[in-house]
Amino acid sequence: MFDLQTYLADGARWIESELDRLVPAAATRPADLHAAMRHSLFAGGKRLRPILCAACAEACGAPRAAALFPAAAIECLHTYTLIHDDLPCMDDDDLRRGVPTCHKVYGEATALLAGDALQALAFELAAQTPVAALEIVRELATAAGSRGVVGGQVEDMLGEHQPPDAERLRFIQQHKTGDLIVCACRMGVRAAGGSAAALGAATRYAAAAGEAFQVADDLLNATATAAQLGKAVGTDAAREKTTAVSVHGLAGAKKRLNDLVAEALAALADFPDDVAPLAALARHVAERKN
Amino acid sequence: MFDLQTYLADGARWIESELDRLVPAAATRPADLHAAMRHSLFAGGKRLRPILCAACAEACGAPRAAALFPAAAIECLHTYTLIHDDLPCMDDDDLRRGVPTCHKVYGEATALLAGDALQALAFELAAQTPVAALEIVRELATAAGSRGVVGGQVEDMLGEHQPPDAERLRFIQQHKTGDLIVCACRMGVRAAGGSAAALGAATRYAAAAGEAFQVADDLLNATATAAQLGKAVGTDAAREKTTAVSVHGLAGAKKRLNDLVAEALAALADFPDDVAPLAALARHVAERKN
Repeated sequence: MFDLQTYLADGARWIESELDRLVPAAATRPADLHAAMRHSLFAGGKRLRPILCAACAEACGAPRAAALFPAAAIECLHTYTLIHDDLPCMDDDDLRRGVPTCHKVYGEATALLAGDALQALAFELAAQTPVAALEIVRELATAAGSRGVVGGQVEDMLGEHQPPDAERLRFIQQHKTGDLIVCACRMGVRAAGGSAAALGAATRYAAAAGEAFQVADDLLNATATAAQLGKAVGTDAAREKTTAVSVHGLAGAKKRLNDLVAEALAALADFPDDVAPLAALARHVAERKN
Repeated sequence: MFDLQTYLADGARWIESELDRLVPAAATRPADLHAAMRHSLFAGGKRLRPILCAACAEACGAPRAAALFPAAAIECLHTYTLIHDDLPCMDDDDLRRGVPTCHKVYGEATALLAGDALQALAFELAAQTPVAALEIVRELATAAGSRGVVGGQVEDMLGEHQPPDAERLRFIQQHKTGDLIVCACRMGVRAAGGSAAALGAATRYAAAAGEAFQVADDLLNATATAAQLGKAVGTDAAREKTTAVSVHGLAGAKKRLNDLVAEALAALADFPDDVAPLAALARHVAERKN
């Protein structure tokens, strides 16, 4: 019987110990910079992207280790986007998951540069993948760029204090969060030497699961209590953010969430090997309470 | 008879028209982001790094076009470092080469993200090189990272208001500026399918020429007039920066400059083809007045 919590905890431990080995030690010159990179990298993330990357490699019949480099790369890339998002000129956040943000501990300049260095490290790691390294670098660069996660971030900033707009919401969801999740899954398939059919399955699965994850986030922000969520709620409405709830309403967002999970599960048929982790992850997205 | 000014002007025109073709149009969504990227990319740089990259490909007998992708990549990477250096939390500069800096025109958040996107674009372009793309991506990632240009930038910040320190100066010169110049030259050799001997020559040439370029900069900052330089002079001394002049003195810095140019010229013997542009560039570094 597959147990998702055990799988997630084990996956997080795996990628954390590998990152600890792959990222320059905190004493490496300049020590402040490497300490700042490690501060954010080891600040208690869920490691969803590297776990998805590894799970897609496993769904192609490869061992988890085949996806090590892209998994480490996507976590470095994701972490850099969080460091830059938290900066005073962006969201100006002091805490993330209860831990002081990078610039609160190391100052703005070092935090900016720690983010920059983590992006470079992501490409350095991706380029070390034993199989399909060049294709993996290309996936990562496209997802990370101005038509990927950075583009989504810009549209998200523009969307604050604007009337709800379904088209902008789709753009933000697809690029700000979706692109890195799709990229994580596609890199896992490529690192496993998977078929074109598996690559297609990973794309459809990740696009649906990634959007589901965000719709669930929007629903939780609108409906959960702060105690359930461990962070402030109702903040999207207060900031007049364009979200699934502001665009589709509560009932519409719930229906959209269920449809997306069904879509993600349907895509799994095109993987040749064990898809239990990917199926459980998609279901978990819809059911989580925090 | 080789004419350096014609070669430089022609090289700058070449890379600018190629970048214009390779970088998403300013109208591409998000339009603000792409406009900000283009603002800094087309703000009148000397294009030294892409010209060196192409000249090293030519010194291996390849046409300039062989080095197109790494040349475009290194200019995108260099431009992102300038955008981030100019931000208020770093040097807080309003102007660069007489043009308003990215954050003065587009705001801090968009400038930050334009820099981030230019770094991703650099890797996207490098990964498109027809020959040795993976090796080229690896060169770029190492040079761009925490043990490369970003590490040099951090040490440079730490070095302000500190007593002159020859060891720190060497670290800053090597990493903050040297690594990208070495990377540009090595990528040019790799894109041309050059030999290991040519790769070694490019490394020695670029390390010496890159340091010479910085010593010359330090000398100009200490000795030129503002009218000659077109920007403020004496700023290093005012900020108590660690420079070649503060560490070696004026006469010592001048001697170091001459030694470095001789070193760069000596390295050229190991290239199989035309090294006239590389030789003229190294001599030009020592003689320039602005």
